[in-house]
Amino acid sequence: MIRIAIDAMGGDFGAEPIISGVIEALKEAEFKAVLVGDSNAIKPLIPQPYLKNIEFIEATEVISMSDGATDALKRKDSTIYKAVELLKDKNVDAVVSAGHSGATMSLATLRVGRLKNVSRPAIATLMPNSKETATLVLDVGANVDCRSEHLFQFAIMGEAYAKEILGRKEPKVGLLSNGEEESKGNEVSKEAFKLVSRLDSFVGNAEGNQIFDGSIDVMVCDGFMGNILLKTSEGVADAIGKIIKKQVKKSPLAMAGSVLMRKVFKTLKKQVSYDEYGGAPLLGVNGCVIISHGKSNSKAIKNAIFQAIKFANSNINKVIEEELSHFAR
Amino acid sequence: MIRIAIDAMGGDFGAEPIISGVIEALKEAEFKAVLVGDSNAIKPLIPQPYLKNIEFIEATEVISMSDGATDALKRKDSTIYKAVELLKDKNVDAVVSAGHSGATMSLATLRVGRLKNVSRPAIATLMPNSKETATLVLDVGANVDCRSEHLFQFAIMGEAYAKEILGRKEPKVGLLSNGEEESKGNEVSKEAFKLVSRLDSFVGNAEGNQIFDGSIDVMVCDGFMGNILLKTSEGVADAIGKIIKKQVKKSPLAMAGSVLMRKVFKTLKKQVSYDEYGGAPLLGVNGCVIISHGKSNSKAIKNAIFQAIKFANSNINKVIEEELSHFAR
Repeated sequence: MIRIAIDAMGGDFGAEPIISGVIEALKEAEFKAVLVGDSNAIKPLIPQPYLKNIEFIEATEVISMSDGATDALKRKDSTIYKAVELLKDKNVDAVVSAGHSGATMSLATLRVGRLKNVSRPAIATLMPNSKETATLVLDVGANVDCRSEHLFQFAIMGEAYAKEILGRKEPKVGLLSNGEEESKGNEVSKEAFKLVSRLDSFVGNAEGNQIFDGSIDVMVCDGFMGNILLKTSEGVADAIGKIIKKQVKKSPLAMAGSVLMRKVFKTLKKQVSYDEYGGAPLLGVNGCVIISHGKSNSKAIKNAIFQAIKFANSNINKVIEEELSHFAR
Repeated sequence: MIRIAIDAMGGDFGAEPIISGVIEALKEAEFKAVLVGDSNAIKPLIPQPYLKNIEFIEATEVISMSDGATDALKRKDSTIYKAVELLKDKNVDAVVSAGHSGATMSLATLRVGRLKNVSRPAIATLMPNSKETATLVLDVGANVDCRSEHLFQFAIMGEAYAKEILGRKEPKVGLLSNGEEESKGNEVSKEAFKLVSRLDSFVGNAEGNQIFDGSIDVMVCDGFMGNILLKTSEGVADAIGKIIKKQVKKSPLAMAGSVLMRKVFKTLKKQVSYDEYGGAPLLGVNGCVIISHGKSNSKAIKNAIFQAIKFANSNINKVIEEELSHFAR
């Protein structure tokens, strides 16, 4: 049975939403949950019937958001450290953590190690689009300054994820740029264009809006851009919501209209919410590590676990290594 | 009287919306419109009473969107070339063009020249935010690869625009980054942080969402990022609109609601539309050049003209030169 280590205390809201997510996942899927944390605090949150599918690994420390990622290696009693060690020692098939993402990333990279020919693991995230399919964007924060070969590796990893995990047979991979023409791009992206062109899945330079119109499956960019993209799109959605609310308040007619449209707004909120997608896989490490949002609710944790199960059952890491070794020859 | 050269044929939709915009502007403001284009084609579009405030400069060629910007210098009979020459020769106080933006930029930079101590002019654009104030973002496309000193100059130019044109007495200038902490950023932005820190208006690193929450007045980034930002935010707004429409169609109740909310959506659309802001000033050239969207309607052209009048009546270019010379000492 698939075994998944879950950092039980790393999220912004403590153990409660994480444990609820684990229980919701256990209702729908078969796996062994290995909860890493203070079992005295966690156990009371778990109804008796689920205990048979849960193991506990004791860890008392939590790396907080204000801690530096570099300290993570020394904090051997932390939930993230112990969860990653379980993966390193092959005691589990995957790790899910809503804790300090920088620490998770560093520990996974340094302790579990990278796949062959991967220089830098990347955080990939699914973003909603108007076709209701979701676009994979990577890197969204692991690597701020990237060289062209890193972007090429991200393209390979993203393509593999789209095929192996999202089930897209012929995924379209785009390289984020300031225009679709081949001549567009900055120094690094122009160099990367040549490298990524060797992939059949490559459709060329792609613009920011193509993440959201569903015209591509995978968008490749450096972690600086990726992080800014995420924040920008959150900001736009948030501002639109605020403007609508402000205007609705000014008119009783519009207010009535908004009540009738409540279900539409709810569906929209659901469609653009990260809860639906679970977490962000850290691609390029020799195992399965899912980085969940610090503010994850139980649904997000449940979906992150499902993602981890799918990942652990797939051949993605083998596919990435084979593809990279093909180009390394 | 302020004289404004208007590229009468450069937009995607030909002369019609441009001439309508000029006439609308003439109804509300006093200025002399110098229309650059084929007067035989343009004149019939202008009602008699407005002719007294209009001059014509003949130009038969239009640089099309598929032409390279580098050819612009040779195309001396083009509308953009002639409009820029009028500015260079001080026959007008400002240029407004909805034509090829790369050509306008190159011509303005090479023929009109840069302000003292400006290495690279930047395109600045106003973006809507939930506070209904608008945030100035620069550069949004003129300079793909930037060094830290370029970003510093953009900060000075943006600050000057916010003060002199937008009337913000104490504008807040942010540097686009992947986190607010000083330690965040890529190589170039970290170096730029130190330089921009010398400005009192600098509030530090700012994240993508801060463009849209109104917490800063000016966001500084390179043209690669800026272009991607624009496209990303358009893409998000577009996807939200599409998802709402799709959902509304599924329910008669929601459809009724959307009718009651029609005014709200109209206001939203107006608030996030670039028509309201006019065009994007090219900051750092020795004159006033407003680059309008190729798809500008008459309202966008009218507002671009108002922007040009404000710019031409201001001291912004003097302020930029003084500020830069202060730091060049």
